[in-house]
Amino acid sequence: MKYTDLGRDELLTLQKELLEEYEAIKSKGLSLDMSRGKPNKAQLDLSNSMNDILQSDSDYRTDNGFDVRNYGIMDGISECKKLFADLLGVKSENVIIFGASSLNIMYDYIAQCMLFGASGCKPWSKVDDVAFLCPVPGYDRHFGILENMGIRMINIPMDENGPDMDMIEEYIKNENVKGLFCVPKYSNPEGITFSDEVVKRFAALKPAAKDFRVMWDNAYIVHDCTETPDSLLNIFDEAAKAGSEDMFIEFVSTSKITFPGAGISALAASENNIKEIKKRMTAQIISHDKVNQLRHVRFLKNVEGINEHMKKHAAIIGPKFEAVLDGFKNNLDGLGIARWTKPNGGYFISLYVMKGIAKEVGRLCKEAGVTLTNVGATYPYGIDPDDSNIRIAPSYPDIDELTQAVEVLCICVRLAAVNKLLG
Amino acid sequence: MKYTDLGRDELLTLQKELLEEYEAIKSKGLSLDMSRGKPNKAQLDLSNSMNDILQSDSDYRTDNGFDVRNYGIMDGISECKKLFADLLGVKSENVIIFGASSLNIMYDYIAQCMLFGASGCKPWSKVDDVAFLCPVPGYDRHFGILENMGIRMINIPMDENGPDMDMIEEYIKNENVKGLFCVPKYSNPEGITFSDEVVKRFAALKPAAKDFRVMWDNAYIVHDCTETPDSLLNIFDEAAKAGSEDMFIEFVSTSKITFPGAGISALAASENNIKEIKKRMTAQIISHDKVNQLRHVRFLKNVEGINEHMKKHAAIIGPKFEAVLDGFKNNLDGLGIARWTKPNGGYFISLYVMKGIAKEVGRLCKEAGVTLTNVGATYPYGIDPDDSNIRIAPSYPDIDELTQAVEVLCICVRLAAVNKLLG
Repeated sequence: MKYTDLGRDELLTLQKELLEEYEAIKSKGLSLDMSRGKPNKAQLDLSNSMNDILQSDSDYRTDNGFDVRNYGIMDGISECKKLFADLLGVKSENVIIFGASSLNIMYDYIAQCMLFGASGCKPWSKVDDVAFLCPVPGYDRHFGILENMGIRMINIPMDENGPDMDMIEEYIKNENVKGLFCVPKYSNPEGITFSDEVVKRFAALKPAAKDFRVMWDNAYIVHDCTETPDSLLNIFDEAAKAGSEDMFIEFVSTSKITFPGAGISALAASENNIKEIKKRMTAQIISHDKVNQLRHVRFLKNVEGINEHMKKHAAIIGPKFEAVLDGFKNNLDGLGIARWTKPNGGYFISLYVMKGIAKEVGRLCKEAGVTLTNVGATYPYGIDPDDSNIRIAPSYPDIDELTQAVEVLCICVRLAAVNKLLG
Repeated sequence: MKYTDLGRDELLTLQKELLEEYEAIKSKGLSLDMSRGKPNKAQLDLSNSMNDILQSDSDYRTDNGFDVRNYGIMDGISECKKLFADLLGVKSENVIIFGASSLNIMYDYIAQCMLFGASGCKPWSKVDDVAFLCPVPGYDRHFGILENMGIRMINIPMDENGPDMDMIEEYIKNENVKGLFCVPKYSNPEGITFSDEVVKRFAALKPAAKDFRVMWDNAYIVHDCTETPDSLLNIFDEAAKAGSEDMFIEFVSTSKITFPGAGISALAASENNIKEIKKRMTAQIISHDKVNQLRHVRFLKNVEGINEHMKKHAAIIGPKFEAVLDGFKNNLDGLGIARWTKPNGGYFISLYVMKGIAKEVGRLCKEAGVTLTNVGATYPYGIDPDDSNIRIAPSYPDIDELTQAVEVLCICVRLAAVNKLLG
């Protein structure tokens, strides 16, 4: 029974029913939150024992005898660099370890390009009309950095394989187009992973701008939540074949492995880029928190240790993804008013509702006590041209809350769709 | 017996003796380091029990119930803001807590001024010939930030009361002069504290540039090492009287209270500046390491707790300052070839040798196995116009090593002076 096939009278009856349901929910005074990609308490507890690892009588020395409590080792202790190098499939010398926030590394890298330029080119702050390509929908905080820097954003549609590469290949003929942010695995908010062909086409890009940079935010590199995980090609292996290593900066963090905001983050880049970044860092910092680096290495041990640890996250977060997808299937399937992604990992599901009603769905949900990510936030400048995408973050609420929230959301989607169809 | 009063023959005899002593030392193959202001192991051990405070079964919630392991609270947990506010004598709402490095906060603030401007003025990156005043000698890493940003540096001499305020009052008539870095208490490298008059004159400055900023790096705020500590006026109290609160950004960290590079840092500023900084931070980071903030607050407790803790540092570092000063007194006093500061705290002593020989002293020391801070590094661009200042960092070596290093240094000073006098 597609809503679009219903006649006016049928729609009016439906509207009445849905309004009654909606008012009944509103009267419950719910307070449910599906807005942010935050781990829940059970996930945080998985890493508590990391705080037992370094105690007053512990050995604070690295494998090569350096005391992590003191100044020094700007780019990270060697065992931590190795851990991230192994995780990313690159060499240790291509890795720098930072503080708790990979967003901060990205911000700093863009600020560095603005102030000092990249690859010997003019600083972006001296270039009129610097533009970035923005695969959409995307991560609001990527867009936030660009907006903050005054960099013009150009929407690039995504499909199930990644961004529209034809469009990207066309836009990069303009040398004012300086780069692109993306989440190549379990993308935010769609949860899709770039296909092998898309990764290869990225590596093969020949931008007019010598200082074009792809910010490869591999935030969900080990964040599978089903038995059929996606796999992503190693961008630096592909770039090496194409000789385009300088075009990519890869970011990763333990924010959703150990503790958000109290983990460690890292960057991988070509020899040339590492040299430029270290030059800036020499003025910026003496060293990041190496005590926390040592804590992480002794807790996670190696890539196998990370993978084992992530299975525990999957056991918590997997059922939540299922709960959302079940809710959508039971309440929206076959109505012709919504579609949604079915990710194998990451933190988000994208719900696409009938064009022109997403903001209204957000408003209805809010009034019924369900907080969604601000509708529109998944697009540059907060403007979804179709007013259709809604980002669902299933991780933070418990299953019961989540199930309830999804039911409310589905009623709001149906009510908004009926209202729209009635004009 | 001043060297300058000696005749040529006496100097030649002295030179022979000193050369013999020097060669004897060189043959020992020493390896002593007085180059950086690093705490030594005994000082680091003072804070080890901080790592026992948060363990797997701990309560990770702040006083107001927030779980520090998760995202959120960009500007720091409230108890940590209060701790620093109390320490600095300001209100909590004027404080922001950051990561491990106060140098990083300063870098970010200058980068913010470069990219976005301050107080609604033009971004410094769009201004031709931005200049900063640099009290000298000063901290090499302050100069490093300015050099990195391409900001022109102008030397301002220091005396025992602080920078030459007449000169500063004159220079700030030029609106391209945009600011100044200083260490107002136990300055790096002289260990002097700004007099009340100097602080009041700072507060009363009327720069032509509306976006003039004084980077008040209060790195050694509680770092006394004698029974007669210096005291510094509260800059924000004085600025409030003069209505100049927007001119000052104050920085502080626990790098030399708990662990260098694994502590926490903070900034205090006016309401206007806090607003501008938070706007930038919103694009830059979700939250700094709040687990470490909670660890610090529970370990240090309050200002009294910090003061008690700092007495333990003083008991370790005080005798080292004495050892250096004793060495200078025994080996250089009355020779007319050197003078030195006698700080009541901080991490450094400044030794001034006869003009034109500091670099040579550094070279002689190095050949004899004693590493000093690069001679010249205490001045912008690494150029000490008098080639006279040598920064002594007594904290890292143990007393025996330090005593030996100072003896070597004094022989090098005497030898270089005699060589210079012989022409």
